[in-house]
Amino acid sequence: MAEPTKSLGESFPNSRKVYLDERLRVPAREIALAGGEPSLRVYDTSGPQDCPVDQGLPKLRAPWTERRRATQNGGAPNFSQMHWARRGEITEEMEFIAVRENVSTEFVRKEVAEGRAIIPANINHPELEPMIIGRNFLVKINANIGNSAVSSSIAEEVEKLRWSTRWGADTVMDLSTGERIHETREYIIRNSPVPIGTVPIYQALEKVDGIPEDLTFDIFMETLREQAEQGVDYFTIHAGVLLRYVPLTASRLTGIVSRGGSIMAKWCLSHHKENFLYTRFAEICELMKEYDVSFSLGDGLRPGSIADANDAAQFCELDTLGELTLTAWEHDVQVMIEGPGHVPMHLIQENMDRQLAVCHQAPFYTLGPLTTDIAPGYDHITSGIGAAMIGSMGCAMLCYVTPKEHLGLPDREDVKAGVIAYKIAAHAADLAKGHKGAQDRDNALSKARFEFRWRDQFNLSLDPETALSYHDQTLPAEGAKQAHFCSMCGPKFCSMKITEDVRKFAEENGYTTEQALEQGMREKAEEFRSSGKDVSV
Amino acid sequence: MAEPTKSLGESFPNSRKVYLDERLRVPAREIALAGGEPSLRVYDTSGPQDCPVDQGLPKLRAPWTERRRATQNGGAPNFSQMHWARRGEITEEMEFIAVRENVSTEFVRKEVAEGRAIIPANINHPELEPMIIGRNFLVKINANIGNSAVSSSIAEEVEKLRWSTRWGADTVMDLSTGERIHETREYIIRNSPVPIGTVPIYQALEKVDGIPEDLTFDIFMETLREQAEQGVDYFTIHAGVLLRYVPLTASRLTGIVSRGGSIMAKWCLSHHKENFLYTRFAEICELMKEYDVSFSLGDGLRPGSIADANDAAQFCELDTLGELTLTAWEHDVQVMIEGPGHVPMHLIQENMDRQLAVCHQAPFYTLGPLTTDIAPGYDHITSGIGAAMIGSMGCAMLCYVTPKEHLGLPDREDVKAGVIAYKIAAHAADLAKGHKGAQDRDNALSKARFEFRWRDQFNLSLDPETALSYHDQTLPAEGAKQAHFCSMCGPKFCSMKITEDVRKFAEENGYTTEQALEQGMREKAEEFRSSGKDVSV
Repeated sequence: MAEPTKSLGESFPNSRKVYLDERLRVPAREIALAGGEPSLRVYDTSGPQDCPVDQGLPKLRAPWTERRRATQNGGAPNFSQMHWARRGEITEEMEFIAVRENVSTEFVRKEVAEGRAIIPANINHPELEPMIIGRNFLVKINANIGNSAVSSSIAEEVEKLRWSTRWGADTVMDLSTGERIHETREYIIRNSPVPIGTVPIYQALEKVDGIPEDLTFDIFMETLREQAEQGVDYFTIHAGVLLRYVPLTASRLTGIVSRGGSIMAKWCLSHHKENFLYTRFAEICELMKEYDVSFSLGDGLRPGSIADANDAAQFCELDTLGELTLTAWEHDVQVMIEGPGHVPMHLIQENMDRQLAVCHQAPFYTLGPLTTDIAPGYDHITSGIGAAMIGSMGCAMLCYVTPKEHLGLPDREDVKAGVIAYKIAAHAADLAKGHKGAQDRDNALSKARFEFRWRDQFNLSLDPETALSYHDQTLPAEGAKQAHFCSMCGPKFCSMKITEDVRKFAEENGYTTEQALEQGMREKAEEFRSSGKDVSV
Repeated sequence: MAEPTKSLGESFPNSRKVYLDERLRVPAREIALAGGEPSLRVYDTSGPQDCPVDQGLPKLRAPWTERRRATQNGGAPNFSQMHWARRGEITEEMEFIAVRENVSTEFVRKEVAEGRAIIPANINHPELEPMIIGRNFLVKINANIGNSAVSSSIAEEVEKLRWSTRWGADTVMDLSTGERIHETREYIIRNSPVPIGTVPIYQALEKVDGIPEDLTFDIFMETLREQAEQGVDYFTIHAGVLLRYVPLTASRLTGIVSRGGSIMAKWCLSHHKENFLYTRFAEICELMKEYDVSFSLGDGLRPGSIADANDAAQFCELDTLGELTLTAWEHDVQVMIEGPGHVPMHLIQENMDRQLAVCHQAPFYTLGPLTTDIAPGYDHITSGIGAAMIGSMGCAMLCYVTPKEHLGLPDREDVKAGVIAYKIAAHAADLAKGHKGAQDRDNALSKARFEFRWRDQFNLSLDPETALSYHDQTLPAEGAKQAHFCSMCGPKFCSMKITEDVRKFAEENGYTTEQALEQGMREKAEEFRSSGKDVSV
């Protein structure tokens, strides 16, 4: 896996990158349509294109953070977006997001000030195009990348970053381990237009040769500072894995499945001491605010199977994450809360309800959840179901699961499959939440479909190349893409063509489209119903 | 596409077909496990294997229907399962299903008698292994196959039938059109262990050269009888598309998208007369009961886009389907109701609630629904989300959608992708409904995963060959399938290994597994919580 074989324009025909605000450089992708239809602008995470890997992306935010640095006078510096928001100041990041999400800057500020949303934006990640995570904004998705002790290279990881943001990843977590962890991360951050998250305990563990018992708070803090200096935007920190919760996992079917969670559990048990991430949480907050790194409070005791969902271990930890949220907020440090995992559909709502209640409405960020354990190889689907559901209930960000989950490391095609499945889940959730404008793309695509504008249908889809190739497998001729029929019914009879007749009939009989729209379809129905069972109109 | 390249045993290693009842030949698939674990039996739809296509499957039901034929004396014969159920008689089909679903025969009889479940089982389809569709049983899935005017052959269609039932299709609809429609159907029925559904209006339309206006009731009835004689188990009949509902679709974004619905709408408009399927519905019932063909009352006005979901056209038709249900039941004819289509997540519950209310609890059978329109090429996922949700709410059967939906005709791989996505949706729904025993497979697989019994994990999955191949892409060595680690964390540190330590610790400190299980984890949590914030145990 080297450079992408296709350019952005090849992946998205008839699209061009536009800037919604020239000063702030707020990106969008504009899809041009045929038949006199207005073009459609969609949210764009792909970032500046064609920048050499060694140079990295343009440093959009450098002047913004520079200005803010200059205003800090005396005392411990606090660069967090929550800090500015609570002081009533609108940052450039908030302005950027207001344009990107089509809301007011004041709304953005208020959501951040009150902790319902976060803007993960390390001052040392100037390449970032700011984005927001909160349940009153578009639902976001995260893609995990990262090499492991077993395989993969730096070039591959940067390519996975670009590939995942091309298809729509809103943030990317670098879960690399092994030899070149620092260098890999450096390349990823310098080339990332989206926030980068990490799990610092992985690198800390490398520093003690993989022996959890040898971890110390100092080694952990040294690692945090190293990564914060590089520009990591959010840290997963498993500070809720308390010593007294660990025995609650003893009778589970699948014990502890979070790597970070099990590292800390092992440390707690070995020393018979409380988790240092918990006992010294305030010191961690002090570091976070210097760089504006956001917390992603890790769910180290999340269930690893349907059998273990919503148990005491999970919910006890969640209570502690709620307690830590308040501590972080005392420092004006931004917080989101990680969630499961494996949860059957009927137990999903309880996860969302409890999280909102005990974590004071801090944004929720879940992995799936997977709604069944029986389909390894298809866990982008088992979890896409759970992700769409919890997203519709208010979960702010959905961590993708690829088809390789539980089986191996995702390659390029797995990353794409995971991102697309989660874009579907997030968008279905936006529709369900009635998010303003979310349905515009559905409507544009359905109109194109109904009017047999095949190219527009492909180009408006999440993955135009796949849509086109599937169409061409049945009807490869170029002419078929202008055809007023498709391979399902063939040329002789087409259900969609009948609508012309229906519309004509309706008009002739005094049911104009406008009338129907004005009166509302339901009223019309009542009118028909109350007219009795006479079968002739 | 010719014969399957793999045998049943190759697709499902360590599995063997067993019969839960030797007399009735109720099939199951038994998966043998390692490590002293008991083998697991799963529901099996694959039917008898290795029967030559020209001979068809063994005629399991022939003596059963023969016996019942002999008991009919005088008057119009009624062979419907509902007829026997209402007379308090237990048929062999009900016995078979009771074993298959692990419920009592009386429960099966009562659900059928009261119309909450149907057993689609034409007396002329003796090859059938009976199954039941109803919300108090396992959620079922349907796969559509069928050649079209554009492509495919009889051999391919029989192969798609075998392929779809191998992966778990509970019923199959043959949507063939074109030249050899009768012959194709004959091959499909003679080789099908699952109920076959059709949409007879497609063939009737062929008989009038594709011109809807030329359709007559007589041509339709002639087609029904031809297909009933062959052994079709359920007919989709669009009897709810009333003339007065057609104008309600005029201002829709995507008009009428059901092929059957648009054929009847066109007929109604052309003649300015009421739908003959509605006005002469009683005559259709008379024919249905002679063969015990079940109704699948078609949703000809289902929405074809998110914009058109839950509108007046859709719900007016549903009301009429409810009315027709009562008529069918007067004749002791079994009925299920077809549903949408395209529905955003927040409008799904209303579909289920209304269907139960206005259709008197007759089983619901939905296509998806698709929860967004923006992902052609991935509609098995957009619709798998909706299918899982409506299944958990009580929908009895889910009609699959393949990745090719809206784009082309599904090939062999698409059929498999659709079936697997829908097995996931149906199983997730069974879990959510708390269906007895549904979680056994999840638990067995998760236990295998946790104990690093890789082969068992693959073999317990819905698609062992895919799980195995994904694993092998990262760790191909045979030794890795005995390894006590996986490619995610590598050999050095594994979160799952930590549980050994946790269990040991818990026991040493008096938290035995048994205790925890007995007392319930929640109580344990309360105990911990009430012990205060002391950080040392």
